[in-house]
Amino acid sequence: MKFVEGGVNAAKGFEAAGAEAGIKYQNRKDMALVYSTVPAKAAGTFTMNVVKAAPVVWDQQILTKGNLVRAIIVNSGFANAGTGKPGMDLCRTTAEAAAEAFNIPADTVLLASTGEIGKQISPDKVKAGVKELALVKSSSAAAARDAAAAIMTTDTVDKQVAVAVEIGGKKVTVGGMSKGSGMIHPNMCTLLAFVTTDINISGELLKKAVSADVTDTYNMISVDGDTSTNDTLLVLANGMAGNPEITEENEDYRTFLAALNLVNTTLAKKMAGDGEGATALFETKAVNAATKEDARKLAKSVICSSLTKAALFGHDANWGRILCAIGNSGAGFEPEQVDLYFQGAEKRIHIFGNGVACDYSEEEAGQILAEPAVTVILDMHMGSASATAWGCDLSYDYVKINADYRS
Amino acid sequence: MKFVEGGVNAAKGFEAAGAEAGIKYQNRKDMALVYSTVPAKAAGTFTMNVVKAAPVVWDQQILTKGNLVRAIIVNSGFANAGTGKPGMDLCRTTAEAAAEAFNIPADTVLLASTGEIGKQISPDKVKAGVKELALVKSSSAAAARDAAAAIMTTDTVDKQVAVAVEIGGKKVTVGGMSKGSGMIHPNMCTLLAFVTTDINISGELLKKAVSADVTDTYNMISVDGDTSTNDTLLVLANGMAGNPEITEENEDYRTFLAALNLVNTTLAKKMAGDGEGATALFETKAVNAATKEDARKLAKSVICSSLTKAALFGHDANWGRILCAIGNSGAGFEPEQVDLYFQGAEKRIHIFGNGVACDYSEEEAGQILAEPAVTVILDMHMGSASATAWGCDLSYDYVKINADYRS
Repeated sequence: MKFVEGGVNAAKGFEAAGAEAGIKYQNRKDMALVYSTVPAKAAGTFTMNVVKAAPVVWDQQILTKGNLVRAIIVNSGFANAGTGKPGMDLCRTTAEAAAEAFNIPADTVLLASTGEIGKQISPDKVKAGVKELALVKSSSAAAARDAAAAIMTTDTVDKQVAVAVEIGGKKVTVGGMSKGSGMIHPNMCTLLAFVTTDINISGELLKKAVSADVTDTYNMISVDGDTSTNDTLLVLANGMAGNPEITEENEDYRTFLAALNLVNTTLAKKMAGDGEGATALFETKAVNAATKEDARKLAKSVICSSLTKAALFGHDANWGRILCAIGNSGAGFEPEQVDLYFQGAEKRIHIFGNGVACDYSEEEAGQILAEPAVTVILDMHMGSASATAWGCDLSYDYVKINADYRS
Repeated sequence: MKFVEGGVNAAKGFEAAGAEAGIKYQNRKDMALVYSTVPAKAAGTFTMNVVKAAPVVWDQQILTKGNLVRAIIVNSGFANAGTGKPGMDLCRTTAEAAAEAFNIPADTVLLASTGEIGKQISPDKVKAGVKELALVKSSSAAAARDAAAAIMTTDTVDKQVAVAVEIGGKKVTVGGMSKGSGMIHPNMCTLLAFVTTDINISGELLKKAVSADVTDTYNMISVDGDTSTNDTLLVLANGMAGNPEITEENEDYRTFLAALNLVNTTLAKKMAGDGEGATALFETKAVNAATKEDARKLAKSVICSSLTKAALFGHDANWGRILCAIGNSGAGFEPEQVDLYFQGAEKRIHIFGNGVACDYSEEEAGQILAEPAVTVILDMHMGSASATAWGCDLSYDYVKINADYRS
């Protein structure tokens, strides 16, 4: 398995584009296209929020019907949530504009939006944006980058990845793009993430692979504990790699699952590390937990703790907050049996064990916490399950970005 | 029912004190005493965190035995959590020092601590502090204020309240003190809060009243979502009001419950409004919810949303975040039926209804959000249950306080 260039355009038969529709931002792209030159099988997972954005409702209707998919149209700067009937009407208008521009059926068009909740926008802007997307779409790496840039909101960098593997004697590629970076606390799925692959796989197994993988990837990141109204992961598989169709959970399926996991994990970590105001990626590994579910709860509770995140921002080894956070996780354990470590790029320090603080150097601990990526390891000594979660620190800039968001 | 002066000393037969033990802070009181001149019935509720501070374990052992209580010894600046066996030994040392100083049995002494987790301190400091408490204890309002000041950590003001009612032809007083202001997200009970009353009530009904009341008071506040290792509410009732003993849930019991609720609600709101870095008290009322549990979830989800809290700090009427937060609450509802209002001291604005934004003035909405106490009203139109939750905004100072806490 190896990383390759090209993001959502890395797999065969995909094209992408970004366009300036002037929805909110000036002088930057705010609409994106992901396009398959042949009908693709599709799988999606969406927010569990009771308040669902209109494009989430639209996509769920299309995927429930089992339609093959040709295009995904995405906009930033406007969430199309809390928008009532005008919001659903805009979905239809957008899909119909894409149908005309690309000469495809409207019910093969998926949609996603991200931005301010409750705002309404003019359909004319979106229609003009779709026309521009059709004009500039391309299979180039540059076009994939344009698309990845167009879906950004408070993100500071675009987020792309692609991986190539050999399956059934053929080169299969899985590529993706995503955006964060606030209101990030995915449940079931997440934020906006789009993955394209040329693998030949049954629709049923594609859905199974996607559902299985989100649990340990997007659902294990958090920036601020707020599960968005718009979280959407869409995976398109167009079969153009030419491998024998995967129809059972065999070695080929597991190879695909590993490639998909690497793509999703990479995108998830990029989102966590670029969380609003973040100065560091904050990783927590819970090992030797009693159950997988416990391991997930323990790891996620630590990266979600506001106090722990603020201490990380201050490079303060205030590990008592981590102990407190795992105590709140809902997982059962014996505090006296927990070993807690800080792990940097080159050094690991034992912080807590046998129920009391270890004899560590505060200076060394502070140095690890000042690195751009910090890992906390929790050895629970309760069993053999493990899980990893990713978040970021809580900084002045998180407050600044979110106190000023609309101004 | 009327408010009276005197905090934990307002009820008959109680004395209090604050002392400088030099545990962490210089030139300020950091140990507190609450003392009953006669044995008092006691009820307590404690943190649900798996990692429990040593004094929580100590108190639970004493209350399980049903002992009458004479004294509560509290310290700030040191949590006595994550301290292993030395932490439990310190509890015994403290109780024995109090037993000697006040000539009472050690198993009538309750304990509570708040401060940094994981630190160990010298027992000599605590022993000296107990001696000073014994020297200065008094039934005066000034002594109650000293005690309330001594339990503060990052609190900016002390938190006291007392209420007098007539029960069984006698004046009954209920008074209390508490402290916040970070790691505040009580579950089952909370933070440090101490309530004294001279009511004559059976131990069983006292426990029932306390358990019933925390659900709608302390458990409905949050500063940062972190449930502490040390949360402790202790209620002492010494019977000195002379009312006929309350032994059933009659009118007298309900009057006591109302007084207890007013004391606990007042202390809970004081803690929320003085949350770390807070510039405003943030109240959310969910009305006409399907069930009481739904109402609690809805109200609490809003005051816990980091994005909503940051918007409040910026006086930005970004109500989409509130809509998002109730969607994440776990309560079921129809988004199209929700009415959302902002309520200030003098004005109420209808923000969202029929699934879309109302035609409100952004300027007026921003003015309400700039008030020192802001209320969000959620009319769910699903039933007749209601609940109120209290939090605060998320400011630069929250980050500053918690990035620098130990330095």
